[in-house]
Amino acid sequence: MRIVVLAGGIGGARFLRGLKQAAPDADITVIGNTGDDIHLFGLKVCPDLDTVMYTLGGGINEEQGWGRADETFHLKEELAAYGVGPEWFGLGDRDFATHIVRTQMIGAGYPLSAVTAALCDRWKPGVRLIPMTDDRVETHVAVTLPEADGAAGAGERRAVHFQEYWVRLRASVPAEAVVPVGAEQAKPAPGVLEAIAQADVVLFPPSNPVVSIGTILAVPGIREAIADAGVPVVGLSPIVGDAPVRGMADKVLAAVGVESTAAAVAEHYGSGLLDGWLVDTVDAGVVERVRAAGIRCRAVPLMMTGLDATAQMAREALDLAEEVRGA
Amino acid sequence: MRIVVLAGGIGGARFLRGLKQAAPDADITVIGNTGDDIHLFGLKVCPDLDTVMYTLGGGINEEQGWGRADETFHLKEELAAYGVGPEWFGLGDRDFATHIVRTQMIGAGYPLSAVTAALCDRWKPGVRLIPMTDDRVETHVAVTLPEADGAAGAGERRAVHFQEYWVRLRASVPAEAVVPVGAEQAKPAPGVLEAIAQADVVLFPPSNPVVSIGTILAVPGIREAIADAGVPVVGLSPIVGDAPVRGMADKVLAAVGVESTAAAVAEHYGSGLLDGWLVDTVDAGVVERVRAAGIRCRAVPLMMTGLDATAQMAREALDLAEEVRGA
Repeated sequence: MRIVVLAGGIGGARFLRGLKQAAPDADITVIGNTGDDIHLFGLKVCPDLDTVMYTLGGGINEEQGWGRADETFHLKEELAAYGVGPEWFGLGDRDFATHIVRTQMIGAGYPLSAVTAALCDRWKPGVRLIPMTDDRVETHVAVTLPEADGAAGAGERRAVHFQEYWVRLRASVPAEAVVPVGAEQAKPAPGVLEAIAQADVVLFPPSNPVVSIGTILAVPGIREAIADAGVPVVGLSPIVGDAPVRGMADKVLAAVGVESTAAAVAEHYGSGLLDGWLVDTVDAGVVERVRAAGIRCRAVPLMMTGLDATAQMAREALDLAEEVRGA
Repeated sequence: MRIVVLAGGIGGARFLRGLKQAAPDADITVIGNTGDDIHLFGLKVCPDLDTVMYTLGGGINEEQGWGRADETFHLKEELAAYGVGPEWFGLGDRDFATHIVRTQMIGAGYPLSAVTAALCDRWKPGVRLIPMTDDRVETHVAVTLPEADGAAGAGERRAVHFQEYWVRLRASVPAEAVVPVGAEQAKPAPGVLEAIAQADVVLFPPSNPVVSIGTILAVPGIREAIADAGVPVVGLSPIVGDAPVRGMADKVLAAVGVESTAAAVAEHYGSGLLDGWLVDTVDAGVVERVRAAGIRCRAVPLMMTGLDATAQMAREALDLAEEVRGA
């Protein structure tokens, strides 16, 4: 079975670990979000790709969900001692190596997809990890900076890099707009459309519907390829009981006018794209509403409390996909 | 008193620490060797400038003489895990920060001299540290690679970067030639010639006469400025009892046809450049030979066994300079 998964960072990575256990023989291609990539200290950092790679490759900081295990932060301390920031982005000493290798390869002319494949030669994530595009896409968030913001521009309206919104500002102010800058001109990376065309099923893990999966779908050609693939497309709600399971998805959902409910996210994707949708058992009450939107829906436990629970979620998603296929 | 010191790495840095104690009120300008600079992992590394900066700024690994105190090597371990080398060059996690800041500033258009000043804003070495040039000069060494060399080209004649000769090969094969590539086209960095013109004394610490001080003197204009400054120029022998005090100076002296003796090094500099020369007490027998070459010479203890001993060496050098001046 060939499975294509659109993935952001922590949520996508943890779901993938469950999927690998649930479908050990499946051929899994992961299309990774690169909209939150950022250039720091002259280095290209791809937080979502790395989170998937480290999580599936056994190098992740398990508690934190991102970054490397057994990490130290000496380099970052020294940069701060030189007065060189930003200090709010947590790059560890081990993690820096990934960004140095990536930046060197890109400088040598390799596209990000080839670089990602090279990095995965070491990590052996057990999936094929492809960035959504080799082109530069950078998610910006329009905000009014807090009056008490320590940075320049306090109280002013600004477009900030997604990482600045998410990590420095901790989504403490409303996201007035979310724009994947460059997406319109971007082309899917080599292998993306081919993987979708050959897939038996496409899954949307409980990743952020706006800044993770939404950004991937914003690359021209990807949404259309999925809609036209003629195979079941099944998603898992990242919203449980009207709140994000983790992260601050509600903040960016508001920016696109979508309420933070499991049903509203399904309707946001729409029946033109989505065939099946899993909501958590606490949201069993919305199943009928989702079905009314033309999307098959089931309520099952959606808390990724451990590998077995996550594998069971993956099984439920694949099972719903089979229901779609048989319909 | 304005003192100009031409310095390489460890020997120069340690001497400077003694000089600062011996002449606490002196205005000291250090012209640093950049011929052993190397680009690694996309970063510009300046080993000699950093050794001076860290040593005088209190950040040096005292035992090793180079690199940072309290250092870790996690980033380097990870690069090796990616198969990215060279592994033979020991960059620590804290040290990396210096190279990242430097590389970013150079990428932003600042010359190395301005970058060095910015780095020194943090370290406050108590001297003015100027690279010999803002232009790229790279010392190459012609060698016949060892037959058993693990690297490509075993047994072949090659020109290798000085760091590869010194660090990877540990000077285990003869240096057939030493060439400061780019030196002929290089210009002294801003402030170098001015500092020499305004100096009351110029000192050559017990640094390597070929690949440290020799490289600085190879930048057109520097040797001439020193010779024409009309102030005492006094050096300290890096050779004690026919062997280098530290390092492998004998290997590169052979490449320029100079024997490894305190007298031969003085003659190599020559009376056109050098006014005074300190040799160690074990080399008292060569004092007359040096004097016969037209260079004032004294035999004093030249082992930098500690700060006080080093300060005494600096006092002896300044004292000999006064003798030159009074002559």
